[in-house]
Amino acid sequence: MSGLFERHRPTLDAALQAVAKRDFWSPYPEVPSGKIYGETAKEDGLAAYKARLGQPFVLADHPAEGAVGAEVSPYGPALGITYPAASVETLIAASRAAARSWASAAPEVRVGVCLEILARLNARSFEMANAVVHTTGQAFAMAFQAGGPHAQDRGLEAVAFAYAEMTRTPAQATWTKPQGKGEPIIMEKHWRIVPRGVSLAIGCNTFPTWNSYPGLFASLATGNTVIVKPHPAAILPLAITVEIIRQVLVEEGFAADIVLLAADAPGSEITKDLVQHPAVAIVDYTGSNAFGTWVRENAGAAGVYTEEAGVNSIIIGATDNFAGMCSNIAFSLSLYSGQMCTAPQDIFVPRGGIETNEGHKTFDDVAAGIAAAVDGLLADPVHAAGVCGAIANPATLARIATARSLGRIVRDSAPVEGLDDARTATPLILAVDAADTNAYAEERFGPIAFVVAVDDIEDGVNRAAELAERKGAITVALYATDEAQVLTAADRFAAAGVNLSVNLAGGIYVNQSAAFSDFHVTGANPAGNASLTDAAFVANRFRVVMWRRPAAA
Amino acid sequence: MSGLFERHRPTLDAALQAVAKRDFWSPYPEVPSGKIYGETAKEDGLAAYKARLGQPFVLADHPAEGAVGAEVSPYGPALGITYPAASVETLIAASRAAARSWASAAPEVRVGVCLEILARLNARSFEMANAVVHTTGQAFAMAFQAGGPHAQDRGLEAVAFAYAEMTRTPAQATWTKPQGKGEPIIMEKHWRIVPRGVSLAIGCNTFPTWNSYPGLFASLATGNTVIVKPHPAAILPLAITVEIIRQVLVEEGFAADIVLLAADAPGSEITKDLVQHPAVAIVDYTGSNAFGTWVRENAGAAGVYTEEAGVNSIIIGATDNFAGMCSNIAFSLSLYSGQMCTAPQDIFVPRGGIETNEGHKTFDDVAAGIAAAVDGLLADPVHAAGVCGAIANPATLARIATARSLGRIVRDSAPVEGLDDARTATPLILAVDAADTNAYAEERFGPIAFVVAVDDIEDGVNRAAELAERKGAITVALYATDEAQVLTAADRFAAAGVNLSVNLAGGIYVNQSAAFSDFHVTGANPAGNASLTDAAFVANRFRVVMWRRPAAA
Repeated sequence: MSGLFERHRPTLDAALQAVAKRDFWSPYPEVPSGKIYGETAKEDGLAAYKARLGQPFVLADHPAEGAVGAEVSPYGPALGITYPAASVETLIAASRAAARSWASAAPEVRVGVCLEILARLNARSFEMANAVVHTTGQAFAMAFQAGGPHAQDRGLEAVAFAYAEMTRTPAQATWTKPQGKGEPIIMEKHWRIVPRGVSLAIGCNTFPTWNSYPGLFASLATGNTVIVKPHPAAILPLAITVEIIRQVLVEEGFAADIVLLAADAPGSEITKDLVQHPAVAIVDYTGSNAFGTWVRENAGAAGVYTEEAGVNSIIIGATDNFAGMCSNIAFSLSLYSGQMCTAPQDIFVPRGGIETNEGHKTFDDVAAGIAAAVDGLLADPVHAAGVCGAIANPATLARIATARSLGRIVRDSAPVEGLDDARTATPLILAVDAADTNAYAEERFGPIAFVVAVDDIEDGVNRAAELAERKGAITVALYATDEAQVLTAADRFAAAGVNLSVNLAGGIYVNQSAAFSDFHVTGANPAGNASLTDAAFVANRFRVVMWRRPAAA
Repeated sequence: MSGLFERHRPTLDAALQAVAKRDFWSPYPEVPSGKIYGETAKEDGLAAYKARLGQPFVLADHPAEGAVGAEVSPYGPALGITYPAASVETLIAASRAAARSWASAAPEVRVGVCLEILARLNARSFEMANAVVHTTGQAFAMAFQAGGPHAQDRGLEAVAFAYAEMTRTPAQATWTKPQGKGEPIIMEKHWRIVPRGVSLAIGCNTFPTWNSYPGLFASLATGNTVIVKPHPAAILPLAITVEIIRQVLVEEGFAADIVLLAADAPGSEITKDLVQHPAVAIVDYTGSNAFGTWVRENAGAAGVYTEEAGVNSIIIGATDNFAGMCSNIAFSLSLYSGQMCTAPQDIFVPRGGIETNEGHKTFDDVAAGIAAAVDGLLADPVHAAGVCGAIANPATLARIATARSLGRIVRDSAPVEGLDDARTATPLILAVDAADTNAYAEERFGPIAFVVAVDDIEDGVNRAAELAERKGAITVALYATDEAQVLTAADRFAAAGVNLSVNLAGGIYVNQSAAFSDFHVTGANPAGNASLTDAAFVANRFRVVMWRRPAAA
């Protein structure tokens, strides 16, 4: 039995309990506090990040045939970091060469290594937060949480599911078949976990760790080797991750190349060649539907797990907390400038208005209420910067500019004050009619929202559900005061395969998905074919193989 | 809670224990005894079978736009049964129309219905045995076991796994997140199981029930509607199955069309159109690698679970029970005339012979020993008929004729005496050299075996493992007296993803795979991409969808 497994067993056991119970739980504190992470953790993390800048990122003994790296912070400066780069064939060969000892290690040994990696990642959360800030544009607090503890939660969740699945079948058993009055037939049977092969984790620009850790850790725990392919604009967070993983692997006597970094240059991406390589047996992908479709169609016999995109909706039928509703929606629209895959885009409101605790509100009242709440939220420039962060991709600014003509502007987008070198944009809110499907029925990534006039709550629910079925959706929110309407909507959105939040008005937002309790993406609509993390996400990453013989007399 | 669920709960609980423990267990007696199944069960089953002959098979309220049916018993007579036939669009429309109530039924209700269906199938095992005899050519005893109780075991196994997976996530939970000194945030969360859609079960000619029940019951229990597409030569066993399922569904207040029969005519199969239909979300397939490849490549976004074919091997390195070994192998070669997907084809024997409890045996001694054991096993015509049964497909006889020229004939194939109207063939055994890969390195379905001269046991193990990796294999057997050689082979075949049996010399055969203990197919080599039955086989047949809201104060 592995020492690491024993050391981290309480964490594993608690995680297994948590995913069964689904109450709040996390072993990785989300508060970026020196009292938790050490008094100098914040300064140390910043210093560690700064020491990376303008330097080659050294991954000891990593295959390298060149160097790539062109990351530019959404807050302005180029990072100037280069990473070892190697051809697809070199990476695959190195991955396969490292496979054997990892595959034959006991599941407990692998799980122990994964838990140690997660613990070390947690200790490095401040360094990671800086790396995430300057590759994704997230504000620091969010980068700390989403890039650090919350990503670690999702990795642990995957490890816990992997452990549960790998240990469902005993390592050995005696099979005794009665033979009437004769002697029974007795067989000795042995089972082992056999991994699938090389696993490829394709990261995204906006959540390089949070979205990559589940597949990375699920594949690693189940004995596969992993090639981590970061987005060219967000390599650093995954390079740090790979560095830590390789250090732990080597300390435990395994080959470092069990996990490799496949850094590439913008315009010369090697992703397609990796996906199509016959040795790649598993692909985890986060990104656009267009490339997701390509991955699903071109991965051959590989198992493919995707989180793609969709059109997330809010349906407002009625509320007994108009101010709370507007504030809650305003935060969801503003957080990370709408660049979360869970951010709402379409807000369906009855043409004739809604009933609220403040009396009847017209369609325009509702739109104006949300716009005013956004204005209020972002009134203080420092606070606005902390909520909105920066825009990861310049194309998002262009998309906002184009979107302005798609409807009546209720609230215009503007740069965030005080972040002069940064690429920033507050939410653009447009009013349209349900007939204007060309405006609101496509995903428009970024801080672009539509308040859509519909007949009534049922009309809104049906339009949102049909959008989810056709274009995908990761989240939907509903505001209703009639319980029957709530339950009907719950049925409809279950059929559309989208998770629903009802009457959020306080400190929980539709964007948020808590590990160990909320599944992220259902796998049941075009927003992704997998869910983070359920048994289906891990159970097919390995196979079980037996040998048996008659038991010794 | 369903009354059926409560009634059958002890069976379900025992099945769940069994798959975790993997000792021998079955609730469905495999002995075709009147003491178990009722004194008149045998005659009643035969009479029920005979009453079907020459008649339309009535499936109450089943969509029908015509009638098909051209089954001919491998034992001679045409069955003369016609089945309702409908177009793909009609079947899909009927399946979708029936979906809603089944999808919204509680998992316990669906599982209860499935368990009742299995109990009724068990009671009809004698009728099913006759249907299996005259569609597959299996001898009665085997048809009873494999077509009846053993198939029901595999169905129950799938239902048990489905129940376990569906109940991993609670139906609801309260999520309480502490807020330091403030009031905690409390959310109420609800989860439900959402099926994938229409599930297609494509049956095979040789084991119409055994190979179809796992996918059929896994999909049904998890809320999908199922279209059962039988092989045109083996419709009756699945038509009886569908009849029983529809009866139970209607009795329990569900739509009969939740399960449909997609009977078609030889030469006008509708399988491809079903596989490619966008509404089909799950495909279970048993059959050839060639069509299996087509299914995997053309099923679009559907989840595909296959059992295809392969080249199964035996490696003989040494034995301390030469007679027992030869008898055991002889039975495996002869049983159902080698038409089991688990039957061995290639027997690797060192060129220089082997050491045994009877002293040194040359390569020719070993080949002759196996041939003589086959002769002995099949010496009595009645016993021979009971072991070999008949040949399902005329092409198999042609394949035997062609195979005769592929090597030196050690034992020739011949008809089984006394079955004059039947299509029969005893095993053909050929001696070849390891270099003759064109002879033995392709699957040659039916009673065709090669004794292949290799350098030594390691050479045999490596060749068998490479064959498994390249062509697929469902079983491998090894005879060795050196423990180190056994463990090395276990490692090698685990890497090749094939289940290994060692030193079988008594009443257990390499062909046999016992539900609740042996996984059938690993999913880790080209013989199939799935395993019967593990969590991976069921966990992705449904998705979990949530709705949540702030808990009432």
